[in-house]
Amino acid sequence: MPMTSLSPDAIRAAVLAQRPMVEALFDRLADGSPGEPGIMRDTYGAGENFAHALLAGHGAAAGLAVSRDAAANTYVTWPGSDRQAPAILMGSHLDSVPHGGNFDGAAGVIAGLVTIAALRALSFEPRRDLTAMGVRAEESVWFQVSYIGSRSALGALPEGALGATRIDNGRRLADHIAACGGNPDAIARGERHLDPAAIHAFLEVHIEQAPSLVESGLPLAICTGIPGNFRYPGAVIHGRHDHVGTPRRFRRDAAMAAAELAMALDRIWAEHERAGIPIAVTFGRFHTDAALHGMTTVPGAFAFSLDVRAYDPAVLAEIERRMLAIVGEIEARRNVRFELGRRASAGVGVVDPGIAAGMMRIAERIGVAAMPLGSPASHDAAAFAEAGVPVAMLFVRNEHGSHNPLEQMEIGDFLDACSVLAIWVADAAA
Amino acid sequence: MPMTSLSPDAIRAAVLAQRPMVEALFDRLADGSPGEPGIMRDTYGAGENFAHALLAGHGAAAGLAVSRDAAANTYVTWPGSDRQAPAILMGSHLDSVPHGGNFDGAAGVIAGLVTIAALRALSFEPRRDLTAMGVRAEESVWFQVSYIGSRSALGALPEGALGATRIDNGRRLADHIAACGGNPDAIARGERHLDPAAIHAFLEVHIEQAPSLVESGLPLAICTGIPGNFRYPGAVIHGRHDHVGTPRRFRRDAAMAAAELAMALDRIWAEHERAGIPIAVTFGRFHTDAALHGMTTVPGAFAFSLDVRAYDPAVLAEIERRMLAIVGEIEARRNVRFELGRRASAGVGVVDPGIAAGMMRIAERIGVAAMPLGSPASHDAAAFAEAGVPVAMLFVRNEHGSHNPLEQMEIGDFLDACSVLAIWVADAAA
Repeated sequence: MPMTSLSPDAIRAAVLAQRPMVEALFDRLADGSPGEPGIMRDTYGAGENFAHALLAGHGAAAGLAVSRDAAANTYVTWPGSDRQAPAILMGSHLDSVPHGGNFDGAAGVIAGLVTIAALRALSFEPRRDLTAMGVRAEESVWFQVSYIGSRSALGALPEGALGATRIDNGRRLADHIAACGGNPDAIARGERHLDPAAIHAFLEVHIEQAPSLVESGLPLAICTGIPGNFRYPGAVIHGRHDHVGTPRRFRRDAAMAAAELAMALDRIWAEHERAGIPIAVTFGRFHTDAALHGMTTVPGAFAFSLDVRAYDPAVLAEIERRMLAIVGEIEARRNVRFELGRRASAGVGVVDPGIAAGMMRIAERIGVAAMPLGSPASHDAAAFAEAGVPVAMLFVRNEHGSHNPLEQMEIGDFLDACSVLAIWVADAAA
Repeated sequence: MPMTSLSPDAIRAAVLAQRPMVEALFDRLADGSPGEPGIMRDTYGAGENFAHALLAGHGAAAGLAVSRDAAANTYVTWPGSDRQAPAILMGSHLDSVPHGGNFDGAAGVIAGLVTIAALRALSFEPRRDLTAMGVRAEESVWFQVSYIGSRSALGALPEGALGATRIDNGRRLADHIAACGGNPDAIARGERHLDPAAIHAFLEVHIEQAPSLVESGLPLAICTGIPGNFRYPGAVIHGRHDHVGTPRRFRRDAAMAAAELAMALDRIWAEHERAGIPIAVTFGRFHTDAALHGMTTVPGAFAFSLDVRAYDPAVLAEIERRMLAIVGEIEARRNVRFELGRRASAGVGVVDPGIAAGMMRIAERIGVAAMPLGSPASHDAAAFAEAGVPVAMLFVRNEHGSHNPLEQMEIGDFLDACSVLAIWVADAAA
């Protein structure tokens, strides 16, 4: 069936008709992955497994093809008339941070299901496979490794990552994957389930993670780029525990050293902000040692995590260079020692400009107000981009940020994003 | 027996002869209050009780009078010929911080026992009572209240303090005191065991808590003053947990707010240091929320304790005024809210200049190199000073600071301090 027979308005109407399915899926997801406060879809754990089972069950019930790969990612596929034509993947991750919200990640998978359902309802006949992909293990808080699911699918998980241990239980990633029915040995061998050349595009719908759309009063943004980062997940500062009355010149105060580093990076951030260069600096964990600290003891030990992100690899490199110099200065001035520990990083994710421009035109055509927006966060799409797959992302207005129980996405806004996605897909698969 | 018959050199020799008793007492104390790493004489708990039992047992075995008061402080008394004459108290506390060292506190009690033993060995006949006092509950880390034992003995424990809860078990101070054989009701009524007018002097030997003596190469210091403080034991900062990619303008980062406050007070400290005004600023507990923090989450909650100390009440008041103004600025700039919680404070402790000068002369006379030193820390002597009792303190050289397992006091230095103490006492009790 040629595209000309499916008008954008017809597709939009078919997408809007999926609202009951959308609401039911989000409700079932939340019910099955409680994490008071919020929800808890722990990476390669009970919460994430529940979400994948829900996706697979939904796909099978709808008569779609359901499959899994060595990383236990889930694929729900509507086969195209030409099975050899590069496929369109629509997806995101199904895990969450501890005490997260219901939409971060899951929205992108449900958007794929909505697109398939809407186009099937219109008796569309796709030329290429259309797949909703539930990606594993995107939330790096659990294993402190980025894009585990998507990079495993692409045969590109970094060496050694399978030995990473989950932060709450100390169990190795390889064991977690095996316990979820995956095959860590195949991942270790670099066997890929997805050939980048066989993917026409990876399209990811995601809630916005800062209220830029809320601020602008718009429902939708088309992503212009995904930041890369460098990270020190488990840094520590070694000082000396001392009596609360110890004079300044004798102290080796690990907490003051940490505060000085935080303020130095905060100033660097402010400086970039004034120059119009978007970066972000986060000390997510930032704490004295609960076993040893006390009101009347100078803290001799401090632990922190650091995540710095930017859209330009040169900016990232320069910030890291400055940070390391500052660490040396603080060490000398405060007589402490930083042990930054393992370093992790992720490359900058480049969005396909043609797809982004096409989606912007579609939004305009159907009257959905959209703006361009640099992704503040990392996303699986960046792993696909790094593998050479054309990628695009759509951000949906969301109040209260993400990674917390208060995420609030309106289903109407979500269906606006799905409309743009489905219209673009119908054209690309016609 | 008149003082003229006891030469300083004879008293010093008698003190030095107590070395085996001193070593045995410190060893037994450490053995009976393990707290790997270090020792643990928890306030109104097993470790502190052990130390008081050891003190009482030692006193009884030596034929001295042993008594306790409503706060379960322990008194070992060598009665003077005139029981009505104001007594000399020599003592300090027997509790420790968690994972503390063996000397902080206990040295001052053992110094009292050494003085009594040395003078008894010389057949000295004191005109007034000489008492070694084991004070309870000086380490305010446990109940976040200063000078519980000494203020209770003086009938001056602040109202409400008995309702404070121990930080590790949540049990009320009153219950702890009762469980240790004390009488919290009598304390609540303000009944005093010690009448300040009936105390000739309170004399406290203590290890130094910053290596000023180590730095100077001297064994002994005569205290010139004890700092007062203001404290916020349980302050929290309320921000908002957000995604790691959240732009700066949207963040309500509680950890960055804490770092900014810490750096502001550190600058105020440096400024006072340059002006030659000794103060100290300690954020002993300084931490994100372990239940909610993570590498990819902007910290929305932070907790800290603050202790600021100085020798001048006006300096303390001015720093607190500036701190509160800075808190307001940070709240406005970073869109967070500080909840400083309960405020505690202790007055500045004034040392008796006559006793201090006398001790300095004695040190010179017997060839012990001593220097004047403002106490960096709070001490029970400050509670006695506040009640109008003449007080003095002797600091003993100590490596590695205190409040940690690495405290290291040489027994030779300790016996130097005991010599000065005993010679002063022999004169005052002759």
